[in-house]
Amino acid sequence: MPETTDAAADPTESYSYLGPAGTFTWKALDQVPQARGQHWRSVNNVGEALDDVVSGRSVAAMIAIENSVEGGVSATQDALATIPNLRILGEYLVPVDFVLVARPGTELDRVRVVNAHPVAYAQTHLWLEARLPSHEHLPATSNVAAAASLLESGIADAAIAPPGITEHFDLVQLAEHVGDNPTAVTRFVLVSRTVELPEPTGADKTSIIAELPADHPGSLLELLEQFSTRGVNMSLIESRPIGDALGRYRFIIDLEGHVLDERVADALLGVRRFSPSVMFLGSYPRADRLPVEYVSRYGDDVFTEARDWLRGLIAGEPQ
Amino acid sequence: MPETTDAAADPTESYSYLGPAGTFTWKALDQVPQARGQHWRSVNNVGEALDDVVSGRSVAAMIAIENSVEGGVSATQDALATIPNLRILGEYLVPVDFVLVARPGTELDRVRVVNAHPVAYAQTHLWLEARLPSHEHLPATSNVAAAASLLESGIADAAIAPPGITEHFDLVQLAEHVGDNPTAVTRFVLVSRTVELPEPTGADKTSIIAELPADHPGSLLELLEQFSTRGVNMSLIESRPIGDALGRYRFIIDLEGHVLDERVADALLGVRRFSPSVMFLGSYPRADRLPVEYVSRYGDDVFTEARDWLRGLIAGEPQ
Amino acid sequence: MPETTDAAADPTESYSYLGPAGTFTWKALDQVPQARGQHWRSVNNVGEALDDVVSGRSVAAMIAIENSVEGGVSATQDALATIPNLRILGEYLVPVDFVLVARPGTELDRVRVVNAHPVAYAQTHLWLEARLPSHEHLPATSNVAAAASLLESGIADAAIAPPGITEHFDLVQLAEHVGDNPTAVTRFVLVSRTVELPEPTGADKTSIIAELPADHPGSLLELLEQFSTRGVNMSLIESRPIGDALGRYRFIIDLEGHVLDERVADALLGVRRFSPSVMFLGSYPRADRLPVEYVSRYGDDVFTEARDWLRGLIAGEPQ
Amino acid sequence: MPETTDAAADPTESYSYLGPAGTFTWKALDQVPQARGQHWRSVNNVGEALDDVVSGRSVAAMIAIENSVEGGVSATQDALATIPNLRILGEYLVPVDFVLVARPGTELDRVRVVNAHPVAYAQTHLWLEARLPSHEHLPATSNVAAAASLLESGIADAAIAPPGITEHFDLVQLAEHVGDNPTAVTRFVLVSRTVELPEPTGADKTSIIAELPADHPGSLLELLEQFSTRGVNMSLIESRPIGDALGRYRFIIDLEGHVLDERVADALLGVRRFSPSVMFLGSYPRADRLPVEYVSRYGDDVFTEARDWLRGLIAGEPQ
Repeated sequence: MPETTDAAADPTESYSYLGPAGTFTWKALDQVPQARGQHWRSVNNVGEALDDVVSGRSVAAMIAIENSVEGGVSATQDALATIPNLRILGEYLVPVDFVLVARPGTELDRVRVVNAHPVAYAQTHLWLEARLPSHEHLPATSNVAAAASLLESGIADAAIAPPGITEHFDLVQLAEHVGDNPTAVTRFVLVSRTVELPEPTGADKTSIIAELPADHPGSLLELLEQFSTRGVNMSLIESRPIGDALGRYRFIIDLEGHVLDERVADALLGVRRFSPSVMFLGSYPRADRLPVEYVSRYGDDVFTEARDWLRGLIAGEPQ
Repeated sequence: MPETTDAAADPTESYSYLGPAGTFTWKALDQVPQARGQHWRSVNNVGEALDDVVSGRSVAAMIAIENSVEGGVSATQDALATIPNLRILGEYLVPVDFVLVARPGTELDRVRVVNAHPVAYAQTHLWLEARLPSHEHLPATSNVAAAASLLESGIADAAIAPPGITEHFDLVQLAEHVGDNPTAVTRFVLVSRTVELPEPTGADKTSIIAELPADHPGSLLELLEQFSTRGVNMSLIESRPIGDALGRYRFIIDLEGHVLDERVADALLGVRRFSPSVMFLGSYPRADRLPVEYVSRYGDDVFTEARDWLRGLIAGEPQ
Repeated sequence: MPETTDAAADPTESYSYLGPAGTFTWKALDQVPQARGQHWRSVNNVGEALDDVVSGRSVAAMIAIENSVEGGVSATQDALATIPNLRILGEYLVPVDFVLVARPGTELDRVRVVNAHPVAYAQTHLWLEARLPSHEHLPATSNVAAAASLLESGIADAAIAPPGITEHFDLVQLAEHVGDNPTAVTRFVLVSRTVELPEPTGADKTSIIAELPADHPGSLLELLEQFSTRGVNMSLIESRPIGDALGRYRFIIDLEGHVLDERVADALLGVRRFSPSVMFLGSYPRADRLPVEYVSRYGDDVFTEARDWLRGLIAGEPQ
Repeated sequence: MPETTDAAADPTESYSYLGPAGTFTWKALDQVPQARGQHWRSVNNVGEALDDVVSGRSVAAMIAIENSVEGGVSATQDALATIPNLRILGEYLVPVDFVLVARPGTELDRVRVVNAHPVAYAQTHLWLEARLPSHEHLPATSNVAAAASLLESGIADAAIAPPGITEHFDLVQLAEHVGDNPTAVTRFVLVSRTVELPEPTGADKTSIIAELPADHPGSLLELLEQFSTRGVNMSLIESRPIGDALGRYRFIIDLEGHVLDERVADALLGVRRFSPSVMFLGSYPRADRLPVEYVSRYGDDVFTEARDWLRGLIAGEPQ
């Protein structure tokens, strides 16, 4: 699989992703229409991917942000929290499915050392325990690297890899669907430098990262009230240490709705006034395309009407 | 004391008050600089006073709204809740002090029937019980009417009246300071038709009347959160029945601050979006002229900065 | 109508009420099964009625506490707030309906002076304005006193009185249903000295009066959270001035449920811990006998189970 | 360093830890007085450590739960959430400090491949980038395994390891304090099977894991109110996916105070009634031994007094 998918690649139209081709991240990027026919830069980690975006080497990077089993991807969350002027353009879901591969001629029962990325290993651990109880784990830096390593050294007998890997490497599949959780899914986001907002679609999500005022008991409650008093639901809240001391956290929050929805805009104003540091990461269509539901009293028209009312009474007009 | 204080009275410059001259309401109106030298219309109750304002007979009416002992004046609260397009221009405090008066020649120990407005009677009841244990109460329509009645009929022997009443009537004072609560005070408001807002002074109050959404447990809590999440304090909250059924209330609320203060404006927007019916009664200087205190994170600059931030991120500017 | 309804009256079985016979309060007391055949003491005001209870002259007193149009009865609320060790045993509703009565031979069109209790006058004002536009109001101390006065003096031409009054007085009815609000109703409570609680019926109400911590912005919100976090609805909240200064209030609150309901008991514990002064006025059957509705997660079993769970984990038992 | 510290080891007195000797976990266990002179079982991961506890092979296991830079340790949090009947006995802090070690004779400038546990690599990444810009990372399963690997294979030139490692292995130190964050610290907990609670010390922490009711917007807010309405502060809140679907989380929460503190017990009752699943992980002394501060109105005496009051009024005693 070529790293550059097309001949006519324009260098301002590079997309970075955790490679090589065939990884789950590659599968996520494969869902992006505007990335087709462009240059795809394979990188080693989320830091490199975002560096490409910041420096302008790539117009966007696809990065994993959350796994339904493993939780938030700390490296991604921390990078988004500390690198300014990034924007999420969209989110993409990739089912987590694994195969066990080996060099041709290997028999499943003879496998002893399994090369696997630690996260992949955690998600296939039960299968491996049951089927290969005396196996040993050799960690790899990516799912594809685990497979590739089989061709380079003789330490591992098999590797945990994404489906389809045998199309790219001279390996055979010993078992498929070896993931412990058949409904597992990883959520990816396409990240760019600050650009104009995508139009609201009615099925949008807004991501922010906010810190709490220091030494203020109950301040998380107060942060959440900014959303509840405007009828804005959260689809995600995760805490991450700020890093300067134990007990100091920032919160990664996904809200249902678009910043151009009045209730979301009003909630963000409340958060901005409250939080010593808040980052707006973008409003973008939800991967599931499900329309956001909200109580009618939080509709745009209600906000507009209230502003008109206030303007009128300040002007001294009859109510 | 003449009902019209001056010769040059212009009919568009009438002020209505619960008369006659000498009542507590008259004393409140006497604190209003712009009313000096104008025509003062003595009326019999708050309904007549507000009728004068609505019809244009008077530019404003002084009406009692709350007593520190007796509580809110229901008639005033209900009138303000049901007559549209009224505005409070200012508030005025009058200490509640009473004297006992009688026809010349009356001895205190011979007093048996005491004429008194019911509210005044309630506030002098302990003194009367102690000093005149066998007295009877004859209700009057106002404090001054109680005194005036002594000159018209022989039923009552004495009357509870405001200090200074003997300057206007041929009566003698049998006792002074007969009020049970020496710190009692009545709060009056000067009410006009909708006009432009007074400028913020930094020591302002904003009055509203709001109904709650029907059949929504916890909706009072939600109403109060509109204020607490913007750092707006309430100096008054009173419930009044809407009148259509038991258990349905509207709330009379005084907020600290002016509608041109950002935090107050934002709270009013929240109330407007939430409440099926909200009336703005005005922003006006507090009687005590004490500056409103609020936490710095609710300052106007914080609101302005947050709006600028939101505008910038919507426009795609670097954060 | 005799003041004592029966020969065998036992003085420890007196019931006090705002008389004389025929008043709305009398109609409320008439709904009380255990009062039948006992001595009924007619008194002049709520203060006397409660004095009878405190002194032991009566086992209970029937007093008006709220009117669907006029709101809470301040005198009752303030008396309950300041007299210790009273308990509400039950509540009773009486429709507010009025007739206009006069001495025999009086013609409606000739009526000029109308004797009426101020509250009754407020509730018939629109009818009187429309039908007798030039009438004058003479205040009375009770609805029945208004009627009785017609027989004693010649000042008033007619009186506003409760239906049925012509059975007790030699008067004729000039008009019926003269009340402005046909759905108006007054709520009465039967008050006793502290006694054992009535059993829960599933359709109960609990009344308390609570003060807020001084100088604590948002403390009303915190009080209400004691109820909302336990799924306890309020059917009434009214503020009354404490009386020592403007801006200091106590709150009269009716809760849905019985103090022996776990969620209500837990909420009262929360209020007690929070409030500098809270009075429990009783748990008693609702006048409308409607079962209290609440979310199942606030059921007694949920509270019991949680306590068992906590006890177990403190004891180190497996969870 | 011997795996068993003493000759007289009793198998019921084994302590499990992520080994081998010298790891940060070993340093944490070294702070536990009752573990001295007992058998220390070196295991490979948190799963094995907790298996030892559940099976009874060890009386307790020391496991890392949070890092001030990297955040919560997902494996530990998920294990505690899914294995019943575990109890935290205490918490221990270990500063995160690293050295770079190599086989004797290695020069720093010649190092190309660095063996390091992924978490350790993340915390020394900036130092390595600056000092060894062209290095490559080889992942290891633990910090000590990274060092040990140098003696077994020739792939890596150096390893990131804890200070003191050269006392146990025939390696030399190329650089010390190579951690990027000098204030970084890891928090460990000592976990046992359910036992009786440690006595409150006044400087305690209580750990729970709670799920939220499904499809209930604002339910996190409601969970947090269980604490705020009882004056209980949280020192930690982290979300972890439940694992069955995206968007379903459980919350790991540390509260200030002991379950035998009334306010904590009452809050736990509230959580139990609210949450479809709550696990109590223990009350234990804080590592920093700082007394818990709380507002006096949440003191034990206030809770006791309120219960006495409620009991009295239910019994019909005078208030």
